[in-house]
Amino acid sequence: MEKIVLGLSFLGAIIALSFAGIMAKKVLGFSEGTDTMKKIASFIKQGANAYLTRQYKVVAIFFACMFVILFILSQFDLLNKFIPFAFITGGLYSALAGFFGMKIATNANSRTANACRESLNKGLNVAFSAGSVMGFTVVGLGLLDVSIWYALLRFLFNCNISETATTIVMFGMGASSMALFARVGGGVFTKAADVGADIVGKVEAGIPEDDPRNPAVIADNVGDNVGDVAGMGADLYESYFGSIVSACALGVAAFNDPKAMGVPLLLAVLGIFASLIGSFFVRTGEKFDQKLLLKALSKGTTVGSIIVAIGAFPIVWYVLGKENISLYIAVLAGLVAGVLIGQATEYFTSDTYKPTKKLAGSSETGSATLIISGMSLGMLSTALPIVIIAICIMVAYFTGGGDTATGLYGIGLAAVGMLSTLGITLATDAYGPVADNAGGIAQMAELDEVVRERTDALDSLGNTTAATGKGFAIGSAALTALALMASYVDSVGKVAPDFTFDMSLMNPPVLVGLLIGGCLPFVFAALTMESVGRAAQSVVKEVRRQFREIKGIITGEAQADYASCVDLCTKASLHEMVLPTIIAVVVPVITGLILGPNGVVGLLAGATVTGFLVAILMSNAGGAWDNAKKYIESGFGGGKGSENHKAAVVGDTVGDPFKDTSGPAINILIKLLSTISIVFATLVANYHLF
Amino acid sequence: MEKIVLGLSFLGAIIALSFAGIMAKKVLGFSEGTDTMKKIASFIKQGANAYLTRQYKVVAIFFACMFVILFILSQFDLLNKFIPFAFITGGLYSALAGFFGMKIATNANSRTANACRESLNKGLNVAFSAGSVMGFTVVGLGLLDVSIWYALLRFLFNCNISETATTIVMFGMGASSMALFARVGGGVFTKAADVGADIVGKVEAGIPEDDPRNPAVIADNVGDNVGDVAGMGADLYESYFGSIVSACALGVAAFNDPKAMGVPLLLAVLGIFASLIGSFFVRTGEKFDQKLLLKALSKGTTVGSIIVAIGAFPIVWYVLGKENISLYIAVLAGLVAGVLIGQATEYFTSDTYKPTKKLAGSSETGSATLIISGMSLGMLSTALPIVIIAICIMVAYFTGGGDTATGLYGIGLAAVGMLSTLGITLATDAYGPVADNAGGIAQMAELDEVVRERTDALDSLGNTTAATGKGFAIGSAALTALALMASYVDSVGKVAPDFTFDMSLMNPPVLVGLLIGGCLPFVFAALTMESVGRAAQSVVKEVRRQFREIKGIITGEAQADYASCVDLCTKASLHEMVLPTIIAVVVPVITGLILGPNGVVGLLAGATVTGFLVAILMSNAGGAWDNAKKYIESGFGGGKGSENHKAAVVGDTVGDPFKDTSGPAINILIKLLSTISIVFATLVANYHLF
Repeated sequence: MEKIVLGLSFLGAIIALSFAGIMAKKVLGFSEGTDTMKKIASFIKQGANAYLTRQYKVVAIFFACMFVILFILSQFDLLNKFIPFAFITGGLYSALAGFFGMKIATNANSRTANACRESLNKGLNVAFSAGSVMGFTVVGLGLLDVSIWYALLRFLFNCNISETATTIVMFGMGASSMALFARVGGGVFTKAADVGADIVGKVEAGIPEDDPRNPAVIADNVGDNVGDVAGMGADLYESYFGSIVSACALGVAAFNDPKAMGVPLLLAVLGIFASLIGSFFVRTGEKFDQKLLLKALSKGTTVGSIIVAIGAFPIVWYVLGKENISLYIAVLAGLVAGVLIGQATEYFTSDTYKPTKKLAGSSETGSATLIISGMSLGMLSTALPIVIIAICIMVAYFTGGGDTATGLYGIGLAAVGMLSTLGITLATDAYGPVADNAGGIAQMAELDEVVRERTDALDSLGNTTAATGKGFAIGSAALTALALMASYVDSVGKVAPDFTFDMSLMNPPVLVGLLIGGCLPFVFAALTMESVGRAAQSVVKEVRRQFREIKGIITGEAQADYASCVDLCTKASLHEMVLPTIIAVVVPVITGLILGPNGVVGLLAGATVTGFLVAILMSNAGGAWDNAKKYIESGFGGGKGSENHKAAVVGDTVGDPFKDTSGPAINILIKLLSTISIVFATLVANYHLF
Repeated sequence: MEKIVLGLSFLGAIIALSFAGIMAKKVLGFSEGTDTMKKIASFIKQGANAYLTRQYKVVAIFFACMFVILFILSQFDLLNKFIPFAFITGGLYSALAGFFGMKIATNANSRTANACRESLNKGLNVAFSAGSVMGFTVVGLGLLDVSIWYALLRFLFNCNISETATTIVMFGMGASSMALFARVGGGVFTKAADVGADIVGKVEAGIPEDDPRNPAVIADNVGDNVGDVAGMGADLYESYFGSIVSACALGVAAFNDPKAMGVPLLLAVLGIFASLIGSFFVRTGEKFDQKLLLKALSKGTTVGSIIVAIGAFPIVWYVLGKENISLYIAVLAGLVAGVLIGQATEYFTSDTYKPTKKLAGSSETGSATLIISGMSLGMLSTALPIVIIAICIMVAYFTGGGDTATGLYGIGLAAVGMLSTLGITLATDAYGPVADNAGGIAQMAELDEVVRERTDALDSLGNTTAATGKGFAIGSAALTALALMASYVDSVGKVAPDFTFDMSLMNPPVLVGLLIGGCLPFVFAALTMESVGRAAQSVVKEVRRQFREIKGIITGEAQADYASCVDLCTKASLHEMVLPTIIAVVVPVITGLILGPNGVVGLLAGATVTGFLVAILMSNAGGAWDNAKKYIESGFGGGKGSENHKAAVVGDTVGDPFKDTSGPAINILIKLLSTISIVFATLVANYHLF
């Protein structure tokens, strides 16, 4: 059976990648539009490429250093000898996922704008196809990476199944490190450019958004691609990969049989087919109806989810046998929890529901009350996802019938279930920035009003799918982090059989670890917010300088120097992404060397709990502020230019780094902490103070 | 020895209360000043009394209901039979602490203002004496309550020492419930009045702060008394009491000997003497030098701390014997940690240091960047206290020589050590609102400029002592909560000997409990912030109505209707304090009935970790915003009326509910959750789903 599973995995990966290729070709087949559009698009492309090239150079240095450290440790038998190499491939695949996503996104934006000149449906088609490229590239590469290493370890290096499983789970570290770089770097870039462009352009100079006279406008558009696309691609690659490998490791710990790896792998394959079928259901009419458009997209994800829900049953039955069919419930629990968390997120952040409407109303008494209400909305919105995840954990665990190892496997399978339809959910998510950029190009190229209306309709929908996508990302991150935590305990048991765990909350190292871990997301959020602030300040200064020194920008007689803003954002964001990543790598190791493996488990649990909470708080508060502003712009409480609107702009600006930089980065942080801990388990288990 | 300890405890309590009485008489001996001052002061007194009377009525209903529930449970042997009665006394003493503090504060404000007409030193003397009344009342009542019950249980009801210790620790529930009511109710009152007065008065009508024409000005001053004084008194009463009883319980669990209760009690007595001596060192010259004034106050706390540090050694030696002298280190660790956390708080919130200066600088680009920087300052500022507490826990635990029970006793003693000097630290803290009110009266009574300058100097110092006081309150809350959590585990072991704990982080109920507990402070902060928002809105409407309907307020020809604003705030805050309290009482019980004692331990740990973090974040961000505004008002970046100042006012308004309502309430929440869990331990241990 093992070879059949492996064969199917390769097949699934190849189908996903081929479909991504077909979609890419389809997108590239559309026309880029007028010369102006081409020119603007090429500016964005150049900027994004320049950023990624330089980012990869910085990352390469980090990876080289880590490779040397890991290699030395492996020579002293403090590390599995495959890790240094796997670390590199994980990073490489994660980077590739981001790279392809960004490539297609920067090529699709002008094409989407041009398609919108014809019809809304055609615009949706181009943008969604571009999103699909990203979605299927991520899942295809993820499954491919697992399958290749699985095949190598088992059939070339002749590892037994237990070695294979524990080795593969360590490969997440490369992907997580890369993802963190991409998320933090891209997140700082996009928000620095956005805030900088807004503060000087919109507020000080009084020119509209996406105006070609604004020197930071191209940087802003580049930011959408390097942050929201490339960053997200690397991020979700890591989640997807992490959920599969941790479920494999937990399964092998429970059953000590290759079949336990079969379920996550086959679920991934099933998810690819389900996403593929679902993606054919996405189409819309010509009506500018937010609800119809949303329905068009959600039909795709719904179809995908239903197929997985049905198809998972025979998979579990066939692979694990009738006696373990209860684990099917775990898969289902994850799938349902993912959908519910997405809906909870939508409820708290969409202006069709009460919370965001009430938030918009609080602008009546100024920006201070709006900020207070937004913070409190964000904090309150953590309760529902917590309850959903809590129920999901209990259900998934007890499908194991009371056996701890099987129960933990259940939690791992829930994470895989939640992420199985990633191909299609990510497609609907990644489509957003493409539509956003298309709108920018339509504005800058001064296309017809109706084109802008169509791109706006697509973009506004993208905000909703982005919110649900974020809910999904956070939920899966929490489950995956718990599964990885369990894998950590399992790993320590293998590499240091003499070590006896005392993970009781009454054990001081556990408690202290909990406190330190709990603090990490706070520190991390603080550092990344500060980074955005610093980088934005430098953009503000540069834009002000250009307006002052280059005469004729405002009248349109002189061309703004876009490249210098892109360059500034690039430098600043690359500079800012280093410290947070180093903290994430160093703290768990040092904590481990002092407090030992018990302290590490405490740290992971603490970081997962507060990370989950802070990430939801930041995403939802940010999303709600953004939509409250849009709601006011649509006419509520005085519309654009009113005092209410000014207050809402303050909320939106505060929310920007919340939802697009700090919040998403925390998702990666909590998993990176786990994989780092797993990789350094041998070192920590053998050398620790307490 | 037991009777000697008990005798000394009674003696300490009586000396503290007597000293409070002497100080009160001294304060009342000063003149209240002019007739206008008397009139204003009487408005404030009336408002505060009216609020407290009505608050106590609402609280009485809650206590009556709880008494019935507890009484019924005790009849079914699901509860110790003393609890229903002890619940009442705990609440009563906590309420008394708040009541006396408020009484003296409302009587001291005009006297302080009047004393400032003579000299700065005399003003400090009156205000600090009033603070001392509060400080010594709290510690006196706390020690008295413990001593009385100790005596009753041991010598009237003939309980053995183990029963005595576990019973006494449950008495915290009454004090905690009362404290939560006082903190939330008072916190909502004070901030609703403050925000309401500011928004309409300062911003819309353009009249200065503390202007008698503002209808909400008296409510604002009343708020300082019912929130910052009565609320804080009840709060710290509960911390002090909680730390002593949990240390007693843990000590008896470790040694099963009355001597273990001797150490916390004698430390409390020692702390009272140390505070008494320290308070004689507080005096200042006539120079308006912030640093000199601060030195005057901190001399008192330093002397107090040194005396405890020295005196604790013979106490531990004498009571526990030479073989346990290492536990002295635990006391010292707590004492030092308290001072260090206070200093860390000061560093992050005082405008003499970099973080707040930098924050003030971020107003340069508007309120949005100021909010982002403040949030990030608050989040970053959690790291240092976490490390301090972590080291304190490890040190305290390992003074137990590796024995778990003794180690936990060490943690309990650290909490007692931290709070032992509460008499003097609370005096310096409670002095702040008195000085603040004195300033208000000076303004309203149109006293000389120099008087206002003197009260301002005293008030501004109060902000710093309030910040350090908050750091202390949070640090001690975390340690006490951990000690109570250990007491919970101990209690369950006694009431349900058949139950086997599995508090491992790999046990799903523990993890789920951790998630739910972690979420509670977020929900709690959200609810209390919303409450302030709602209540403030109603004040805004009322003030607008008065300006509109009562002609001649602005010109000074007609008198504003102060009472209606006080009444509004009273109603609103009493209404708002109910839901959060009910949540705090109900959630741990329901969680326990579903997840069992393991889940409860998870919940307590989760709430303690995120509660500690969120409380620090909110206090420090709020304090820093407040001081950044003051720093700008002192001339930096354009001074009052500049764009920077406007941005800083937004930050300050956001920070108000952060630092004075939600943040402090969380301190109480985390301890209330523990004591509730301890009281319902028998019920939960016998009936739970998982």
